[in-house]
Amino acid sequence: PPGMENVQQLSNDMQKKSFEVINCVCLCLCEPDRVLVRVQDLTPENADQLIWLRARVHTSRAKGKQCFLVLRQQQFNVQALVAVGDRASKQMVKFAANITKESIVDVEALVRKVEQKIESCSQQDVELHIERIFVISQAEPRLPLQLEDAVRPDGEGEEEGRATVNQDTKLDNRVIDLRTTTSQAIFRLQSGVCQLFRETLTKKGFVEIQTPKIISAASEGGANVFTVSYFKTSAYLAQSPQLYKQMCICADFDKVFCVGPVFRAEDSNTHRHLTEFVGLDIEMAFSYHYHEVIDSITDTMVQIFKGLFQTEIQTVNKQYPSEPFKFLEPTLRLEYTEALAMLHEAGVEMGDEDDLSTPNEKLLGRLVKEKYDTDFYVLDKYPLAVRPFYTMPDPNNPKYSNSYDMFMRGEEILSGAQRVHDAQMLTDRAIHHQIDLEKIKAYIDSFRYGAPPHGGGGIGLERVCMLYLGLHNVRQTSMFPRDPKRLTP
Amino acid sequence: PPGMENVQQLSNDMQKKSFEVINCVCLCLCEPDRVLVRVQDLTPENADQLIWLRARVHTSRAKGKQCFLVLRQQQFNVQALVAVGDRASKQMVKFAANITKESIVDVEALVRKVEQKIESCSQQDVELHIERIFVISQAEPRLPLQLEDAVRPDGEGEEEGRATVNQDTKLDNRVIDLRTTTSQAIFRLQSGVCQLFRETLTKKGFVEIQTPKIISAASEGGANVFTVSYFKTSAYLAQSPQLYKQMCICADFDKVFCVGPVFRAEDSNTHRHLTEFVGLDIEMAFSYHYHEVIDSITDTMVQIFKGLFQTEIQTVNKQYPSEPFKFLEPTLRLEYTEALAMLHEAGVEMGDEDDLSTPNEKLLGRLVKEKYDTDFYVLDKYPLAVRPFYTMPDPNNPKYSNSYDMFMRGEEILSGAQRVHDAQMLTDRAIHHQIDLEKIKAYIDSFRYGAPPHGGGGIGLERVCMLYLGLHNVRQTSMFPRDPKRLTP
Repeated sequence: PPGMENVQQLSNDMQKKSFEVINCVCLCLCEPDRVLVRVQDLTPENADQLIWLRARVHTSRAKGKQCFLVLRQQQFNVQALVAVGDRASKQMVKFAANITKESIVDVEALVRKVEQKIESCSQQDVELHIERIFVISQAEPRLPLQLEDAVRPDGEGEEEGRATVNQDTKLDNRVIDLRTTTSQAIFRLQSGVCQLFRETLTKKGFVEIQTPKIISAASEGGANVFTVSYFKTSAYLAQSPQLYKQMCICADFDKVFCVGPVFRAEDSNTHRHLTEFVGLDIEMAFSYHYHEVIDSITDTMVQIFKGLFQTEIQTVNKQYPSEPFKFLEPTLRLEYTEALAMLHEAGVEMGDEDDLSTPNEKLLGRLVKEKYDTDFYVLDKYPLAVRPFYTMPDPNNPKYSNSYDMFMRGEEILSGAQRVHDAQMLTDRAIHHQIDLEKIKAYIDSFRYGAPPHGGGGIGLERVCMLYLGLHNVRQTSMFPRDPKRLTP
Repeated sequence: PPGMENVQQLSNDMQKKSFEVINCVCLCLCEPDRVLVRVQDLTPENADQLIWLRARVHTSRAKGKQCFLVLRQQQFNVQALVAVGDRASKQMVKFAANITKESIVDVEALVRKVEQKIESCSQQDVELHIERIFVISQAEPRLPLQLEDAVRPDGEGEEEGRATVNQDTKLDNRVIDLRTTTSQAIFRLQSGVCQLFRETLTKKGFVEIQTPKIISAASEGGANVFTVSYFKTSAYLAQSPQLYKQMCICADFDKVFCVGPVFRAEDSNTHRHLTEFVGLDIEMAFSYHYHEVIDSITDTMVQIFKGLFQTEIQTVNKQYPSEPFKFLEPTLRLEYTEALAMLHEAGVEMGDEDDLSTPNEKLLGRLVKEKYDTDFYVLDKYPLAVRPFYTMPDPNNPKYSNSYDMFMRGEEILSGAQRVHDAQMLTDRAIHHQIDLEKIKAYIDSFRYGAPPHGGGGIGLERVCMLYLGLHNVRQTSMFPRDPKRLTP
């Protein structure tokens, strides 16, 4: 068939790189019935079948009249062989040996059961005997990083002089770094977190909403907000969807969630801060007590913890070993005063209405783990002074508030509260916080026409993934992270 | 119990508006076993039961010793009655009659089966005989718009001097406008579109990704892009996630989708343009032909059309009547040259390589509907000259390209294409389009290390909802729309 001849001819001439090479695939209409097999489906049941496969050249090693390839699809790989004989010429072996690593090839091959398990491949019981091979997309010969280096655990093979890849090199070449088994597992897991979050909430009767990211006024007082040129005026990027979630509650949606980007212009280059991250946000009306909100959120988190794929977790653990993540059912809820008592007992000096510093949060996480054996807990009833103006004060003690944070492995992943749902009280609280009332008029007005008591919270997706997996940098769980120093790729 | 006494006392004194009123709900811990019934669950089976209910006062009408209320929860409502007698005092009837519309109340009431159906309520077979009533949140007496006006079909009741509400008033007071049955239905349907989109693609093996919205270079040439101040430098808001979707394909995720905001700084105040909208984006590697991509997208659209709730559609149709949305299986695919022939036949003069104007798109939609009886179709093989630089040319005719748009009721909802996956060819195309290569270096470099043939497209969520429902302004299907003139609420 004309299309395929074209491809064959071209793949035998690696020098020629032209429009036709690029389009070879769309010319192959002559083979509409050809089925491409997936590497992960290759088992001894396929033995002696002639199959077609498209995959990357993971490694290639020529040895006399043979060339051994490892062909990879995502986290799966299989050994393949081109050997001089009936079906392959000397020239073809040479051609195969010259294919650059990470190139994409189509092969026609016979599946063979092997005597001895191939320990280095995911498909251990079979190998492929290649009869035809075409280059679909050729990789440049010099890769900016080697996949085997990028997945090597820190310290492993140091004595043999084996390299690991530093984080900036990985992020600069994210398209290659994302091909590693570790990255594939992390981001499939992240996709799973979003899916479980939405499914759990949808079952509970929540409605998904879409909130605007370009807003006319800095929602939380003006600090740490990015400014956007908006035609002849200026606007801001939303630091959270919270005000809009609340408007939806005032608009009778009852229980809502949203998943979307959140922007923070914080000039801090820590392991856990990004200037843009994905917020998993919840807001709901409650009947009698804001603990109904806490229960909905903690149950959602528990469903996520329980639902995540174990194989992906194990894959990540191979490179980044960590203790299994522990949680209790029902989730542990501590009051702020109890936490302070634990910290005081451990020798920390801090006042009743002081906020927790990051080191104290971590210390508290360790103390809680020792005492209760959980990596996930809720800290309830924060001092009113350290929370935003829209936080509902504790009716029993005006020093405290109906607000809470949630922690995983001693780091904050969620901040939430019962919100003030009365326009007059909200106005008073805004004045107390010296917020320009004119700028939050639309927000305050939302509560003038009847608003149910409600609360909610916002979860940072990247932090949840990082802490669940026991990783140490939030850039590992953001595909294309943004921080004060990084805007590309 | 102390908490409830407090509430009762307060609700008998509507003047007193204080911290305690606001917090009454959180004080009601004394009633943790009280179950609030949902309006939609009220049927004759509940007859003679004493129940608790929280709802809005939809309407209120005093009549001698009685006060009739309609109590509303979202799209459901029920008639309620306070009458002077054993259980209610004259004072209580007066109190009930004075509760402002849209206030939120808790009532204890006896459910009674009615002889004659109550046509004006969703719960037609029962009414409530109120024994106790508490105001949970009081609405201001003057509402900026009346719900019954906001749901009135255009032109209805004009002779009786009944008002409708213009769009700007609705949007300025969105928190109230979103409470109408029409708005509730529209945004529940929108939530359904997102859910069906993700579920269908997840079943097909797609992975959800999160792409950055702050980017270092204007992705598509620099026009219509918003600028952000980014610490000491400038950045841009992403006009589409396309470049990042493609990087994920180069990074072996094979099939990806994302749902997120998209920003266009177009200074056009039309019925179908927003400066920020929600993009439903798809990108996938294909085996032999980019029509595999078209098939995946059209099947996803068909699953959405089939899966949407009919009750919500009927609710919207009550206010905005429209023809039922028609589609074919498999989806109709027309080539650009065929479409031009149809337009020429209808008297339109345009050249082979001209883009379709909006009026011609609409005309074509009508011609296609007449000929094929479908409101949804694909227009394939656009002239290369009118598509972005990364579009794959048609290998058989360099004047055309492997690109397509999809239309609903004659308006574009998706634009997509096979992408150029070869770095050299992409460079050549960028130069041809006079794009600064330095600015798209990271993008072009993504294709240097092996890239499979792939394609995709991006759908505008608000447009899909608008056109499916036969609405005439995209602001009706955006909760908090953004256009050159609107940044609030």
